[in-house]
Amino acid sequence: MDYIGLDIGGTSIKAGLVDQSGHILESQRAPTIIHDLNGFLSNLTELIRDFQKSVKIAAVGMGVPGLRNCKTHVIETSPNIPCLLNVNLEDLVADQVHLPVISENDANAGAYAEFVCGAGAGTRQMVYLTLGTGLGSGLILNGRLFTGASGYAGEFGHTVINSSGRLCGCGNRGCLETFVSGTGIVRTAAEKGMPGSLTAEIVYEAATRGDATALEVFRETGIYLGIACANLINLLNLEVIVVGGGVMAAGEMLLEPARTAAARHAFPSSFRDCQIVQSKLWPDAGVIGAAMLARDLK
Amino acid sequence: MDYIGLDIGGTSIKAGLVDQSGHILESQRAPTIIHDLNGFLSNLTELIRDFQKSVKIAAVGMGVPGLRNCKTHVIETSPNIPCLLNVNLEDLVADQVHLPVISENDANAGAYAEFVCGAGAGTRQMVYLTLGTGLGSGLILNGRLFTGASGYAGEFGHTVINSSGRLCGCGNRGCLETFVSGTGIVRTAAEKGMPGSLTAEIVYEAATRGDATALEVFRETGIYLGIACANLINLLNLEVIVVGGGVMAAGEMLLEPARTAAARHAFPSSFRDCQIVQSKLWPDAGVIGAAMLARDLK
Repeated sequence: MDYIGLDIGGTSIKAGLVDQSGHILESQRAPTIIHDLNGFLSNLTELIRDFQKSVKIAAVGMGVPGLRNCKTHVIETSPNIPCLLNVNLEDLVADQVHLPVISENDANAGAYAEFVCGAGAGTRQMVYLTLGTGLGSGLILNGRLFTGASGYAGEFGHTVINSSGRLCGCGNRGCLETFVSGTGIVRTAAEKGMPGSLTAEIVYEAATRGDATALEVFRETGIYLGIACANLINLLNLEVIVVGGGVMAAGEMLLEPARTAAARHAFPSSFRDCQIVQSKLWPDAGVIGAAMLARDLK
Repeated sequence: MDYIGLDIGGTSIKAGLVDQSGHILESQRAPTIIHDLNGFLSNLTELIRDFQKSVKIAAVGMGVPGLRNCKTHVIETSPNIPCLLNVNLEDLVADQVHLPVISENDANAGAYAEFVCGAGAGTRQMVYLTLGTGLGSGLILNGRLFTGASGYAGEFGHTVINSSGRLCGCGNRGCLETFVSGTGIVRTAAEKGMPGSLTAEIVYEAATRGDATALEVFRETGIYLGIACANLINLLNLEVIVVGGGVMAAGEMLLEPARTAAARHAFPSSFRDCQIVQSKLWPDAGVIGAAMLARDLK
């Protein structure tokens, strides 16, 4: 039996036909309509029906960029896709495609994928960090996706790491995401005097060419990432922190200073228990995780 | 059937005879011998044997101020009681008193007490913070004491909240404990120019007399406590944060600014789920929690 995993982003919906073991057999994509729920639903269910034409589907999983209430299954915050606010997307989609449907926060779905068949396979205490425009995260504790009282757990990007630090989009100062994210890299680069209209990719390309300032930007970002990892390690005594997301194209340029900083800031006993490694499933972790959540629905 | 709970501190061992429901029936105390294991054991087992003379004991629980490996049951760090380092205290005590014996980190024991029969009773997602000389913490997640991969979880006092901040005893900068603890209060008071040889009690007494600087010290400490609570709330979507420890004599002088700061820094949905309240069992949480861990041993 196969599953459909949907990774719903602010610009597009990625859909995958996924087998029992988490392998993607076929992929599709459709634009995300963010202000009209009927248009959004029409694009999404079209993706599902396309797969249904040729294969028998057991269940559908969806990763959504917002907070999903695990008691009511309603999406309670959805900054990137306003039409999903206060919507029970699972019921709406299930009504149309006549399949079991589950949704979950997108970073939680990614965490579940890495746990089931990625860089965290075989562990029971894992955190997944995804570094894109912002910083998302998902927790696996005692071998299960940890969602907290109402399903909102895992918002590590907005934990304060420097209370006198940078202003964040959320209105507070010094959130981790203002340093460790694509946006954070651009801000650090600008502060260090890199000229022109910057993106994380431009800073990364400069670093690969050996630009000293760009290299320093990644080193500093890695240090903040490492301090954040140490905080997680001290609090949760993890076995692995899996880091994914577009920014992780930089790979060891971030992870090497992160490991050094984490070693300095974490308790030695706890640090010894924990690997800090790159995602194995990026950019497909969201699709695979959503499908695996659908597989493990009951 | 009754239980013995032992709260092992750097200066004394507190012992309680505790019933099934977590009520202390009788208390004893002995000095902690920190450099001689045989002397330490002799004082500790004497406390147990005293209770055994009059009552049938089902099991013994011990809260220890260090990191206990949950696989080997060995104490792996013990800064305050050096003679316990690399010791399996459970086996040593069980051999002498012929009872089932369990040990746990002291803040974890306190967390368990508040969860079973204190301010966190009836919840499933709880963090216990204990503000003394330093800052200890214990986690209850999904209705169970969460100890992580090896039993070291819950070291929240050494998570970094201001990476350019104060030097901590652990060698790092900006650990939460350098602000939110008795020691932190003294440092904040000295920085604000309070004269003389300060202790947290002296600052507290000045605040109760209306001293403006001392009041500001507690307000600022409360704000840091609130930011720390927001970090926990965003990461773990808790139902309750229980705050105990000697410093909490200050009560609402700390909790009121803490709640305000947490409300500002946490996601509204997650903040709504979480109460920030004072411990119900302080100063007995350690004894009661150790006994309840012994009760729930199997």
